[in-house]
Amino acid sequence: MSTTKLPSQAEDFPAWYVEVVKRAELAEHGPAKGSMIIKPHGYAIWELTQRALDDRFKATGHQNLYFPLLIPMSLLSKEADHVEGFAPQVAVVTRGGGQELEEPLAIRPSSESIIWHTYRRWIQSYRDLPLLYNQWGNVMRWEMRTRLFLRTSEFLWQEGHTAHATAAEAMEEALRMLEVYREVAEDVLGIPVFKGRKSPGERFPGAEETFTIEGLMRDAKALQCGTSHFLGQNFAKAYDVTFLDADGQLDHPWATSWGFSTRMVGATIMANGDDAGLRLPPAVAPIQVVIVPIFRTDEERASVLPVAEGLREDLAATGVRVRLDDRDQHRPGYKFAEWELKGVPVRIELGPRDVAAGHAILASRLGGEKERIPLAEIAPGMAARLASVQRELFADALAYREANTHEISSFDAFASGVEERGGFWIGAWCGDGDCEAEIGAKTKASIRFLPLEVTDPGAGCMHCGKPGAEVATWARAY
Amino acid sequence: MSTTKLPSQAEDFPAWYVEVVKRAELAEHGPAKGSMIIKPHGYAIWELTQRALDDRFKATGHQNLYFPLLIPMSLLSKEADHVEGFAPQVAVVTRGGGQELEEPLAIRPSSESIIWHTYRRWIQSYRDLPLLYNQWGNVMRWEMRTRLFLRTSEFLWQEGHTAHATAAEAMEEALRMLEVYREVAEDVLGIPVFKGRKSPGERFPGAEETFTIEGLMRDAKALQCGTSHFLGQNFAKAYDVTFLDADGQLDHPWATSWGFSTRMVGATIMANGDDAGLRLPPAVAPIQVVIVPIFRTDEERASVLPVAEGLREDLAATGVRVRLDDRDQHRPGYKFAEWELKGVPVRIELGPRDVAAGHAILASRLGGEKERIPLAEIAPGMAARLASVQRELFADALAYREANTHEISSFDAFASGVEERGGFWIGAWCGDGDCEAEIGAKTKASIRFLPLEVTDPGAGCMHCGKPGAEVATWARAY
Repeated sequence: MSTTKLPSQAEDFPAWYVEVVKRAELAEHGPAKGSMIIKPHGYAIWELTQRALDDRFKATGHQNLYFPLLIPMSLLSKEADHVEGFAPQVAVVTRGGGQELEEPLAIRPSSESIIWHTYRRWIQSYRDLPLLYNQWGNVMRWEMRTRLFLRTSEFLWQEGHTAHATAAEAMEEALRMLEVYREVAEDVLGIPVFKGRKSPGERFPGAEETFTIEGLMRDAKALQCGTSHFLGQNFAKAYDVTFLDADGQLDHPWATSWGFSTRMVGATIMANGDDAGLRLPPAVAPIQVVIVPIFRTDEERASVLPVAEGLREDLAATGVRVRLDDRDQHRPGYKFAEWELKGVPVRIELGPRDVAAGHAILASRLGGEKERIPLAEIAPGMAARLASVQRELFADALAYREANTHEISSFDAFASGVEERGGFWIGAWCGDGDCEAEIGAKTKASIRFLPLEVTDPGAGCMHCGKPGAEVATWARAY
Repeated sequence: MSTTKLPSQAEDFPAWYVEVVKRAELAEHGPAKGSMIIKPHGYAIWELTQRALDDRFKATGHQNLYFPLLIPMSLLSKEADHVEGFAPQVAVVTRGGGQELEEPLAIRPSSESIIWHTYRRWIQSYRDLPLLYNQWGNVMRWEMRTRLFLRTSEFLWQEGHTAHATAAEAMEEALRMLEVYREVAEDVLGIPVFKGRKSPGERFPGAEETFTIEGLMRDAKALQCGTSHFLGQNFAKAYDVTFLDADGQLDHPWATSWGFSTRMVGATIMANGDDAGLRLPPAVAPIQVVIVPIFRTDEERASVLPVAEGLREDLAATGVRVRLDDRDQHRPGYKFAEWELKGVPVRIELGPRDVAAGHAILASRLGGEKERIPLAEIAPGMAARLASVQRELFADALAYREANTHEISSFDAFASGVEERGGFWIGAWCGDGDCEAEIGAKTKASIRFLPLEVTDPGAGCMHCGKPGAEVATWARAY
């Protein structure tokens, strides 16, 4: 671990992010352009996020399955908007088994095409519906401007793909999964998010409606945290999928798709970190509690280590992810800084005098305050303590977002405000895509979301002055 | 579900396999040649297998991480045996983001090359060792002769990659993971396996020793179920990885790698199935217990369904994976056959007279015998019942393997025996690769494994008569 100081968030947020990802050993660049190696500490955060999502997918009736990585180019091209959106980003396999392929194969940028091609075989009758399926895997969207976790060619994610007999059911599903995403973002990753609709220009290629959860990072820039799409009958029509409804009428099924990716590891870093490094929500902290024994002599070592090990066992027995850092080559101060940087929520310091007095020192990663706690009370109280850290971290991020969410009083106030302080800006918009694009060009901000239900702003568009059609929330974003 | 009879195993095993995979809705072919769609029932078996493996990997000190899918061709080529082994099977990306790539990228056939290229940065001192890492993901090895689960271009697996300071430690690790594989194959998937060494000709490209677990399918053909490799210092040397040992001497670290794949879903089908279809070990049965309610009138329905639902809840509360099959469109007999085909270990039949008498009928997928059990005793006794099914299924497969494992009395007896009845054949071998190849050409059998420790056969080679160097076990294999 480097012992030079981290850049502060205020002084250079991008440099802070790069250094935290590197020093906390979360990820690094791979040999091929745009690729990423996810290191154990970063991957463990993703695994815990996966488990939180997967449990909720299953609780809402979904099953996992797996579709192939490679998609014939001709298949990808059937839904016009979809291929237009993805074509510039596709990686193409042209050789296999030592031969040129007859038809080039795309590495999936998303799996709607191969899945709806297959659903054609799986759906005949309303009795086959709904199909509530999810897939965990990797996808590839060519990128040259790599940013670890946030923007890489290959990323890991889940993609849900459902089919329904009615539009209303599909819409309900899209919103149900958006709520699952909100819950995981807020309750698990500690990131407050707004739920909303994307403007037509920001929709997923092939979607009729894209729903989003949007979070605010500690540089006051927004990040799209997960999207859920109501696809209408577009894919069913493009891939010729029909079913006989209960009345014997032939119809196209209605679709949703929804995705949540390793990008969210980046969001967790950026929404919760501080100048000392990561601050991990206990729900996804690979190590929730670290015990640092303190001793100088062999005698002290012999008195401290067994007690530390006993404490480790007691904590592990209650289900806490705990590590005893008994490395000999580092001093306690070095270990404190390393575990702070890596975001461990609770640190336990245990020296010979603590052992003699039957207590230990607990230090919180959040406030840094220290408490002296009797040894026997540490393990029984840890679950409640971690739950409290989880709540505090969320409250802290929420307070930050609230302090950085503004009503737009005039276009000029918005333009200078978003330039100076970032944040979310809420105001009336005429609903016109050209006006949206002009605002974007002038301010480098984009509409992050519209309310789930169209809402009358009761005022003219903040930019063009025409009658307001929507309440839009703007921000500069990743 | 098709209602025509399955082909019997004895009459046409390959056709039986194809039909079981299809009718039990485990998997189907994807649109690109050699690709596979894993359907929910098949994927759930894999998920349960993954969990069983992953828990054991973590219990033995391993962490997960993730390396990129795409590997620059120049990197893949650094270990000579490795590239020679994999080059004919590689799929190559030559276009990305609308442009020809400067350097073509291979889709990983295995990740030794990219991992050891990276370990060069991660390993400097003996304090950095051991590295005990595992990766879950997809790999690609070009295949035209597709067989679902057993042989597909893309498959899902885990690959462990460890680095150690000494040869002894690496050897211990390779054997430790082989034992984990044996445990999961036998105790979880219900497949008896032999542990052994591969002959030099059958080693993994770049390995100094390949260890294997070998199972016997119900057509008396062998299947390689998982391999663990002692890689020596080959990859460390090829990728220029060195470390300073405790004495300050520069050395190359020692490596292992080990993999277990979705092929094992195929093995589970073929080692445990019977003429009625799948027989799933409870440990990986997505549905362990199915409740089939029986009624004709609405009145009967009203008396039976609430009791069935109560039973389902009681079973679910004890952690059993249970499904109440209350579909209206199918008769009980159809449902019985469907769940038998899909391998559900225990079926509960519940009709109005059962409800009145306070009991239900339990039918075992194994023997087919039925038992009348009081309703209140079903849920409390189910865990023990499932554990017993797990044991019986394994015992049945073990008896089959024992009946099909033979000592070789003469080459002719072996050649005609393996032709007529398949099975494992154990005999003395001179240790010469040419002799091994000749035997293979004459019998279509291969050496499945040698004992973990070289064992003196105390007899001449069963083929060439030269002094025996090894005890070899032969079989025709997938």
